[in-house]
Amino acid sequence: MEPFKKINFSSENFAGVYHSVMDALINANNDNAPSYGNDQITQDTVALFKQVFGENIEVYFTFNGTGANNFGLSCMVDRHHSIFCSDVAHLYVDESNAPEAFTGCRLYPVNSLNGKIIIDDLRHKIKRIGDVHHPQPKVVSLTQPTEYGTVYTIDELREIKAICTANNMLLHVDGARFFNAAVQLNASLKRMSEEAGVDVLTLGGTKIGLMFGEAVIFFNPAINNPFKFNLKRSMQLASKNRFIAIQFQTLLRDDLWYKIAQHTNELAMLFEREIAAVPLLQVTCRVETNAVFLSMPKRLHQQMQEFASFYWWNEQKSEARFIFSFNNTAHEVMAFAEKLKEIIG
Amino acid sequence: MEPFKKINFSSENFAGVYHSVMDALINANNDNAPSYGNDQITQDTVALFKQVFGENIEVYFTFNGTGANNFGLSCMVDRHHSIFCSDVAHLYVDESNAPEAFTGCRLYPVNSLNGKIIIDDLRHKIKRIGDVHHPQPKVVSLTQPTEYGTVYTIDELREIKAICTANNMLLHVDGARFFNAAVQLNASLKRMSEEAGVDVLTLGGTKIGLMFGEAVIFFNPAINNPFKFNLKRSMQLASKNRFIAIQFQTLLRDDLWYKIAQHTNELAMLFEREIAAVPLLQVTCRVETNAVFLSMPKRLHQQMQEFASFYWWNEQKSEARFIFSFNNTAHEVMAFAEKLKEIIG
Amino acid sequence: MEPFKKINFSSENFAGVYHSVMDALINANNDNAPSYGNDQITQDTVALFKQVFGENIEVYFTFNGTGANNFGLSCMVDRHHSIFCSDVAHLYVDESNAPEAFTGCRLYPVNSLNGKIIIDDLRHKIKRIGDVHHPQPKVVSLTQPTEYGTVYTIDELREIKAICTANNMLLHVDGARFFNAAVQLNASLKRMSEEAGVDVLTLGGTKIGLMFGEAVIFFNPAINNPFKFNLKRSMQLASKNRFIAIQFQTLLRDDLWYKIAQHTNELAMLFEREIAAVPLLQVTCRVETNAVFLSMPKRLHQQMQEFASFYWWNEQKSEARFIFSFNNTAHEVMAFAEKLKEIIG
Amino acid sequence: MEPFKKINFSSENFAGVYHSVMDALINANNDNAPSYGNDQITQDTVALFKQVFGENIEVYFTFNGTGANNFGLSCMVDRHHSIFCSDVAHLYVDESNAPEAFTGCRLYPVNSLNGKIIIDDLRHKIKRIGDVHHPQPKVVSLTQPTEYGTVYTIDELREIKAICTANNMLLHVDGARFFNAAVQLNASLKRMSEEAGVDVLTLGGTKIGLMFGEAVIFFNPAINNPFKFNLKRSMQLASKNRFIAIQFQTLLRDDLWYKIAQHTNELAMLFEREIAAVPLLQVTCRVETNAVFLSMPKRLHQQMQEFASFYWWNEQKSEARFIFSFNNTAHEVMAFAEKLKEIIG
Repeated sequence: MEPFKKINFSSENFAGVYHSVMDALINANNDNAPSYGNDQITQDTVALFKQVFGENIEVYFTFNGTGANNFGLSCMVDRHHSIFCSDVAHLYVDESNAPEAFTGCRLYPVNSLNGKIIIDDLRHKIKRIGDVHHPQPKVVSLTQPTEYGTVYTIDELREIKAICTANNMLLHVDGARFFNAAVQLNASLKRMSEEAGVDVLTLGGTKIGLMFGEAVIFFNPAINNPFKFNLKRSMQLASKNRFIAIQFQTLLRDDLWYKIAQHTNELAMLFEREIAAVPLLQVTCRVETNAVFLSMPKRLHQQMQEFASFYWWNEQKSEARFIFSFNNTAHEVMAFAEKLKEIIG
Repeated sequence: MEPFKKINFSSENFAGVYHSVMDALINANNDNAPSYGNDQITQDTVALFKQVFGENIEVYFTFNGTGANNFGLSCMVDRHHSIFCSDVAHLYVDESNAPEAFTGCRLYPVNSLNGKIIIDDLRHKIKRIGDVHHPQPKVVSLTQPTEYGTVYTIDELREIKAICTANNMLLHVDGARFFNAAVQLNASLKRMSEEAGVDVLTLGGTKIGLMFGEAVIFFNPAINNPFKFNLKRSMQLASKNRFIAIQFQTLLRDDLWYKIAQHTNELAMLFEREIAAVPLLQVTCRVETNAVFLSMPKRLHQQMQEFASFYWWNEQKSEARFIFSFNNTAHEVMAFAEKLKEIIG
Repeated sequence: MEPFKKINFSSENFAGVYHSVMDALINANNDNAPSYGNDQITQDTVALFKQVFGENIEVYFTFNGTGANNFGLSCMVDRHHSIFCSDVAHLYVDESNAPEAFTGCRLYPVNSLNGKIIIDDLRHKIKRIGDVHHPQPKVVSLTQPTEYGTVYTIDELREIKAICTANNMLLHVDGARFFNAAVQLNASLKRMSEEAGVDVLTLGGTKIGLMFGEAVIFFNPAINNPFKFNLKRSMQLASKNRFIAIQFQTLLRDDLWYKIAQHTNELAMLFEREIAAVPLLQVTCRVETNAVFLSMPKRLHQQMQEFASFYWWNEQKSEARFIFSFNNTAHEVMAFAEKLKEIIG
Repeated sequence: MEPFKKINFSSENFAGVYHSVMDALINANNDNAPSYGNDQITQDTVALFKQVFGENIEVYFTFNGTGANNFGLSCMVDRHHSIFCSDVAHLYVDESNAPEAFTGCRLYPVNSLNGKIIIDDLRHKIKRIGDVHHPQPKVVSLTQPTEYGTVYTIDELREIKAICTANNMLLHVDGARFFNAAVQLNASLKRMSEEAGVDVLTLGGTKIGLMFGEAVIFFNPAINNPFKFNLKRSMQLASKNRFIAIQFQTLLRDDLWYKIAQHTNELAMLFEREIAAVPLLQVTCRVETNAVFLSMPKRLHQQMQEFASFYWWNEQKSEARFIFSFNNTAHEVMAFAEKLKEIIG
């Protein structure tokens, strides 16, 4: 098979499996083990999650992010409820109609700025509570960090949680890149989730370097769902579940997640610095995690594709997206920046 | 973590990953690659499927068997249709309500004998075609081999296909252990699927030794579904799809599948021979692939659990199930049989 | 428009609206009234239901029987549950895939005799409780009277209820012709429902002479569903609800239901007597309410169509169905029986 | 029962049944008739629809508007599609999660002005066609007249239809008050639907004076759905369908619809004229059909409730809604306006 030879700034999904995660997979393959999560590795991993996120959690594993979000949300809602998320949320624009198929609920979009919901718009849109004709507000789903790499502060989370509480709603966080947000806020995973009032967290594994696998963590004991039945129904219960669990165990042990997320965040900031003074280029969104959004001439985007792969994000804004993966290097970033400057000349 | 120390005759899902499949996963991790199946490995694997199963197929990959069956079926039906399957089909008794969630269709059970549908009962139950009040017959779904390890002959498949054709219905095969059936029938994979009139095949990977992953093959070009949109909607589209594809590539290259399936089928037959003359034990279903069903005293089942793990299958029949995985050995089978005889004395 | 000139023994749905129900509709049209059930007529009707069925009920109105059954059932289940009903239940063979669309649950058929479930088969099929792979048993749905006109005795209902209770399941009754059963058992509506352990009752209105409209009665206060939200979601909440309510009010006032149901039951028994000694005809199912099932030569069925309309029910059994509506008369029954005898000679 | 004694400007659903519609119901009750739409009245009514709307239509009847919209839409979409409608559409804010339950599709809101979608916003939001991750645009659903009583001109409809055609999308119109729009545009029903490019029309009956019942008209023969199966599945197929059909027949005969809609439109315009010069009151939206939106002090709204019922519509805008029904009179409007002026002094 032919390798993909360019530098990858397109997606963390291009980057394969982090080496020590792969090593752990190999090691986990030494023995027989019960299926469907009834194995020792899964139990150990759940115990580790409890150390990290709090003793009262429930945690389940899924194959992918769409599965994780919709399994998690389906445990939080009844069929007449609505879910509020940003108008650019992955849930809203990148998960096809899986939310409708598995939750049966309405998604209502909240206007956003740099990926974050505008809190006043959320307040404005939560309405008609008790009205049988209207989908009933039940969940606010945030992306942390957002699709634009920005991060909700703990205070912002608490403000949104207060709105939830006031309206008998729950807070879900889609944390496909949650670790990158934790590094940026310099906060523990527990502080960013349980302590900030998060009721349910989708904790992404694939983008930080797992082969596959996401975790869904339930913090709020009032969410009294038959979780595992629902997991099975959502077609996300893995028969050889230990191979998801061992990957997460590796990530959480010795704070491997911190090391990787710090690395990718730093590459984004390095890139931002390198291109700061380059004419024609303009950073369009504050760089807080491992993504940089840049307005640039479309022609330049096309010219650079020979050298590196990165997405053309927004035609109207003439905007490109750069995202940094565990296997990107400072050298790649510098070389790319050089090339950019050379062409712009 | 503590290993599972007993002999495993419980489930192929206990057995982990076949060594050369694991090697292939390691090798596939050398480069970046586009996501969601747009990579070279996936393309090469699809080409290989076409060599093996026929040039006109469409093939997609899913995470697990429940996902594969329901993604495949959802491409064959409209929302007012019904699906006929055996009353012991995995689809009917082991996939929770995923069929309802994802296809929206009625499942109608057909009576079975030794896992195979009773063809006359199928004929009898296909009825009220054109009646708006009644779910409209559209698919027959068979399991090949069945949940009891028995195998539909090519002639039986053709007879059932003829019933489908006569009623404007389609034939789906759940082939979670399809390779074992192919070894038993000594038929090519193509002969057992396309040439036998199968419209859609779920081709199992996990049970024969993949870490995870199933394939869904569409043979009938009249099934004109927006497959990939539907795959995404079913939460089964893998971001790092190459890691499913490479496993199937390994399985199909140099007929590795044949070697493994032959091994596990032979272990079942060895076991059958070894316990043939043992008092108190009675084989309850013809042994055709890698499973043996045995009536035995319940107490004996319990006594043997210390030595090996195997399922108590049917309380009423006082029946146990033994299933053989790639990493079982003739030595294990012999040792177990010895132990049995010793206890029965 | 051209009238339907034959005698109708086909269906109560052919029979239009009972005269005093029509009068009530006319009278209810004198004033403005709030919509969606917030009107005085609806409130009065609910009060009347409470007098008749018990003070602790909740009652909602739907447009038709399929809507009533599936609204009612959807209030009793979670999405991983299963519902058991007879293999000839209207729910199972005559409501298309509405159950899947609105409850998301599996329907499991229970073998039946003369329309009644075989209780031992029900006992046998309730299984694998707590097993995440298997749809979880939650509801038994009976039809009272059955599709064959037979009636569960109070004792039979209690026996089935005990099975439900033992398995943490609920009892639903599809009472599309419930009034006919009450007449037959000579029991009050309350005795046949609340006192017999029914948790949810679909009370049919259309077949006994309403223009349209069914009621769903919830007896068990532990069913804590957001009923009205669910009713709206199921597309069954009538804007001018008073016109359903007034019809039921008419039916329940002065036991009008009793008078009509008694009349139609008696016609069935008259017919049974009249044809008792006729050669070639054989009653196939005990006549308990307003239906008679008769085996007869198919040719005779066809010959009689000129004179009266009635359904050819079961080709294999050479069986026809006669059903009697409020506007059928003893004279019609006698005339038809005469004609039959004349032809048979 | 106690009558609702105030003047009703709240909702057409408060107004009961138009007298000649009730007469027709009475007359239709003279004979037996086949069920489920297989009767002569239904056939005659369908023929009348074809005269009025065009020979190539398919027409089906439903119980209510939510049923009609979602039955109609479900015939236009596949499960990975999206539907665009205004952010104030009944479909989007007043039909609970019925769209999700029954179509499985995403609803995307388009910004609106005075109830009409902003066409540029629609153009902007139709995107990512062919992208498997994104719900695929398939239907634009307009409300004609809008929830604010405004009317799309034929030219506006054609402009929106052109956008649909360019994107391989279909045009649905929710015509809960369609007749009022036709009177305003002085256009034939055919010109406003088939000739304007409407693919599917929900034609409202309840609001103009039926007891219950809506019609769904399919104009585009390329929509090749198993309509009647889908109607049954949606729990909207009436057993005594003739009683819906006869009401529509009455409405379409001798242009009764025109007479009623003209009357209610004129009452709105009369009211607008009467309060034109009253201080503190401001018409907030152009009056084009039978609704008037008025900003007024909230206290005034409350004071007037003793005299007449009308909705407080929008707290933020201090806005009330007045809607006029077939049984409202010019005298009521004048009396109300007098009272208003008296109080405002």
